[in-house]
Amino acid sequence: MTYQPPLYDIADALACVGLDDVLALPAFAHIDRDSVQEMVGEFARFVASEIAPIDTVGDAVGSRVDHDTGRVVTPQGFAEAYRRFVAAGWPAVPFPEDWGGDGLPWVVGMALQEVLASACLSFSLCPMLTQSGVELLGQSGTAEQQARYLGRLVSGEWTSTMALTEPDAGSDVGALRTRAEFAAGVGWRIFGTKVFITWGDHDLADNIVHFVLARAPGAPSGSRGISLFAVPARLVGPDGSLGEPNALRCVRVERKLGIHASPTCVMEFDGATGELVGELHRGLPAMFTMMNTARLSVGVEGLALAERAHQAAWAYAQTRHQGRLPGTDPAASVAIAEHPDVQRMLLTVRATAQAARLLVYATARAVDESRHHPDPRRQSRAGEVAAFLVPLAKAWPTDMASAMASVAIQVHGGLGYLEESGVTQIYRDARITSIYEGTNGIHAIDLVVRKLGIGPESPLMGLARRLESCAQGLRVGGQRDAATVLGQAADTLVWSAKWLVARRADAPLDALAGATPFLRLAGTTVGALLLGERHLQRDGSGPLPAADAFFIRQLLPIALAEAPAIRAGAGSLRE
Amino acid sequence: MTYQPPLYDIADALACVGLDDVLALPAFAHIDRDSVQEMVGEFARFVASEIAPIDTVGDAVGSRVDHDTGRVVTPQGFAEAYRRFVAAGWPAVPFPEDWGGDGLPWVVGMALQEVLASACLSFSLCPMLTQSGVELLGQSGTAEQQARYLGRLVSGEWTSTMALTEPDAGSDVGALRTRAEFAAGVGWRIFGTKVFITWGDHDLADNIVHFVLARAPGAPSGSRGISLFAVPARLVGPDGSLGEPNALRCVRVERKLGIHASPTCVMEFDGATGELVGELHRGLPAMFTMMNTARLSVGVEGLALAERAHQAAWAYAQTRHQGRLPGTDPAASVAIAEHPDVQRMLLTVRATAQAARLLVYATARAVDESRHHPDPRRQSRAGEVAAFLVPLAKAWPTDMASAMASVAIQVHGGLGYLEESGVTQIYRDARITSIYEGTNGIHAIDLVVRKLGIGPESPLMGLARRLESCAQGLRVGGQRDAATVLGQAADTLVWSAKWLVARRADAPLDALAGATPFLRLAGTTVGALLLGERHLQRDGSGPLPAADAFFIRQLLPIALAEAPAIRAGAGSLRE
Repeated sequence: MTYQPPLYDIADALACVGLDDVLALPAFAHIDRDSVQEMVGEFARFVASEIAPIDTVGDAVGSRVDHDTGRVVTPQGFAEAYRRFVAAGWPAVPFPEDWGGDGLPWVVGMALQEVLASACLSFSLCPMLTQSGVELLGQSGTAEQQARYLGRLVSGEWTSTMALTEPDAGSDVGALRTRAEFAAGVGWRIFGTKVFITWGDHDLADNIVHFVLARAPGAPSGSRGISLFAVPARLVGPDGSLGEPNALRCVRVERKLGIHASPTCVMEFDGATGELVGELHRGLPAMFTMMNTARLSVGVEGLALAERAHQAAWAYAQTRHQGRLPGTDPAASVAIAEHPDVQRMLLTVRATAQAARLLVYATARAVDESRHHPDPRRQSRAGEVAAFLVPLAKAWPTDMASAMASVAIQVHGGLGYLEESGVTQIYRDARITSIYEGTNGIHAIDLVVRKLGIGPESPLMGLARRLESCAQGLRVGGQRDAATVLGQAADTLVWSAKWLVARRADAPLDALAGATPFLRLAGTTVGALLLGERHLQRDGSGPLPAADAFFIRQLLPIALAEAPAIRAGAGSLRE
Repeated sequence: MTYQPPLYDIADALACVGLDDVLALPAFAHIDRDSVQEMVGEFARFVASEIAPIDTVGDAVGSRVDHDTGRVVTPQGFAEAYRRFVAAGWPAVPFPEDWGGDGLPWVVGMALQEVLASACLSFSLCPMLTQSGVELLGQSGTAEQQARYLGRLVSGEWTSTMALTEPDAGSDVGALRTRAEFAAGVGWRIFGTKVFITWGDHDLADNIVHFVLARAPGAPSGSRGISLFAVPARLVGPDGSLGEPNALRCVRVERKLGIHASPTCVMEFDGATGELVGELHRGLPAMFTMMNTARLSVGVEGLALAERAHQAAWAYAQTRHQGRLPGTDPAASVAIAEHPDVQRMLLTVRATAQAARLLVYATARAVDESRHHPDPRRQSRAGEVAAFLVPLAKAWPTDMASAMASVAIQVHGGLGYLEESGVTQIYRDARITSIYEGTNGIHAIDLVVRKLGIGPESPLMGLARRLESCAQGLRVGGQRDAATVLGQAADTLVWSAKWLVARRADAPLDALAGATPFLRLAGTTVGALLLGERHLQRDGSGPLPAADAFFIRQLLPIALAEAPAIRAGAGSLRE
């Protein structure tokens, strides 16, 4: 099954979440809707011809350490594809113009990222991580550091990694042990082992800048004593020239369930020269400034693989003929897309992929407004909305990606279990997205503990008002059943949130116990809301499209049934 | 993570579904409860020491075709393990004594099969398929065929396959094209290609008997014109002696997502000598007589992998320390099993594995009664119950196996995505069980179209009465919340069934549209019922165990929320 960038759906989703409003912001005066469409179309053509073809071989061969050179070798075609990707200028699109970027809205960047991740998730991770490095350096680096690194990272000439995790410091990054030592005249030296370093070594670019969290001498223990260092694989002179290899190496590439072409490295830093980025001991806050967008990028990956699953399931169901239906010719088999049970699977993947896209793009729109809205009050409100939506936009689409890949396998029957079908790769690749960049459980806790408010101006109450209003609009349009479910969703969301907020203060374990079911409820509800709002924006007088009605009337009730789990408390989970 | 046969849970589940009642049947007068326990224990020790160790290498190496010999070679250790398995007499356990078996109840056979499938799913498939061949031949073979084949299949000296599927005849087996020709003095010759033939070739045994569905000359088209043939890989003389290789071969071993050690073969029959089994053109009815137990065996596999996932998740969560909790020492991390969000995952896998075990064993108990109950009326009622439960026992545990393997991966965090964790193999292996032996969608349709009745004596109404009674018992024991949910489940089950039965007659597509959500509802409900009944059997006065309460109060409501989907009709699924 060849991936086809879904240009219509992407344009439609961009319009639905308010691309025009974003483009009306002064920061984007240089861009109009047509040029955005043109750029997305051009990128889609590039990706379909240059990137999508390397996905299968990337999975079959994988990246590996060459025993002679000790360096990571990527599968055939990856280095050449990356060279063209950089030559065409694509990495720079979403970055500010003063960093050397094209200054496009983040929501447009997310649309491009969706297409890239759908075509080849492994490949997409390299520029995705470099993007995080750019944000980090753009926000926290000195002018001198920016002069040496930023342009090359924005262009993609060099790539970067996030080196946070250690064997005993995963979800709890504050437990890390990598240390930084300072020697006069020499500067900082980094010692330690980092694991799960995505694209930690490769042959795509001339240099790799590792952003490493480490503990400097005299640092307080825990998460308040961590500093951030830029540690290039090859040393960089004051003029930006490439020097000797630094004292670091990839000691192993992990053998993983999926994303085989993306080298997940164990990196050893053995006195590697590093540069402090930002303030000493303030590495984690610096890191957090880019985490929202990094998390959103992983949500995009979830959406991207749900879209792949959607395309694979639909394509196969239309060509495969098997069985008959009551009332059809007993001598001729029908396309399996005609069987109601298969149609249920097809609508599930279609509706879920569309809801995921709206959720992710809507979050990116909030990110754009939080950075560029000229009204400081609106800017700050958008920041709160983005902060609230990011855990949903990271966790819900990624959980859905695995679930939808599983549905796509099921639609394929026995063929779906064969690697030749290609859907197995979607299933294997998708599974990582619920884990990395913070497990989805961590995001549920982040949502409930840090992002959830119930004041009248809170994002949650804003959503509840939109749900009521959307329900009202659907009711007026004759969509009573859907309106009823959306109304129930508003109620369930609000009273669940009130319960969690009350417990958070008095019995925090109870709030933690309800976090994951609350995220499931909220993610599905926001997806349903955006589908409903899209319908009202379009016209709203006719019936809902089948997939949207299906999502609201048949899938949303299942999420509402998380209500007892949300309020069951921590005591209910102890053996 | 090493698999530990859960002897306590198995004994407990056997007792709960009524092992004593089964052993009280005259057919089992030669066996008592102690000898059953002893046998399960002995088998568990055998499996833990001889079979479990080959699981990992089986996955890593896989079975393959040797290009020199054209024969399938299994991974190191498989042939030796199989030899010991046969030498110890294990294959014969659940078969009638006049076939050369030990005559133990089927429910005990399922307990053994659970242990074997948990230890190494790939290995377990070989005796599982042979078991189907034994049933087929025992029920439909001539005395002469039985004399030559049955003893050797019962003992496991030879193995057998089910050769049904063809490239264009999967779910619709009636569309098959393999043909049988009859030549005077020569007998039947089989021509055609069969796909997805599990253990179609291997090096474990001296002979492989393929049970092949084919169309004889003059056969009606469709499913009424199919005959069943026994086609041995090596010809068998009238005295049972092994002769020349037959005209058949494995042309390919498929590359699959999982069960790598189980060779999934494309088999070519090029005029192979076959023997008609049963009546001409009556192959499918013959096949259906053993399908109930074959499907139940796949349900056992689902249960077995859910158990593996359960063990892996619990073992890791207790040893991995990460993060702190409100109120704990900020300097010391806690086992992740202390985090409420992880506890939710742990209870989910525990409760689900236990519910799956009860569902599968309860179905096997009904199979035993349907074969051996001395009261013909009770026997026939048990047959109806078994027929009703089999689709649930096949589909629900297998869907849960993949879901629970995914939860186990999530508990492991980043490590869970590495193949070295072992949980990835559970995830990959489990995914086939929802597909083969009839996709789960096919079983949902079978349930709704053929097995669902709403008369007062129907299995469904029997379940509804048990739900009411269990709810009442829990209410008396002070478990009001759980009682309420079980009462709601009874109501939802009954009115969903009534709606489906009404539509089945008037608008069959609507019934087909509701099949899968109805199966989800029914599977979860029966699991919850059995957990509740187990509690009442034990004593019933205290609170429910945490996992059981969790299943009934937090998971069952989600299945009840399938109600709108069940009754939405086929129109809701059309774009």
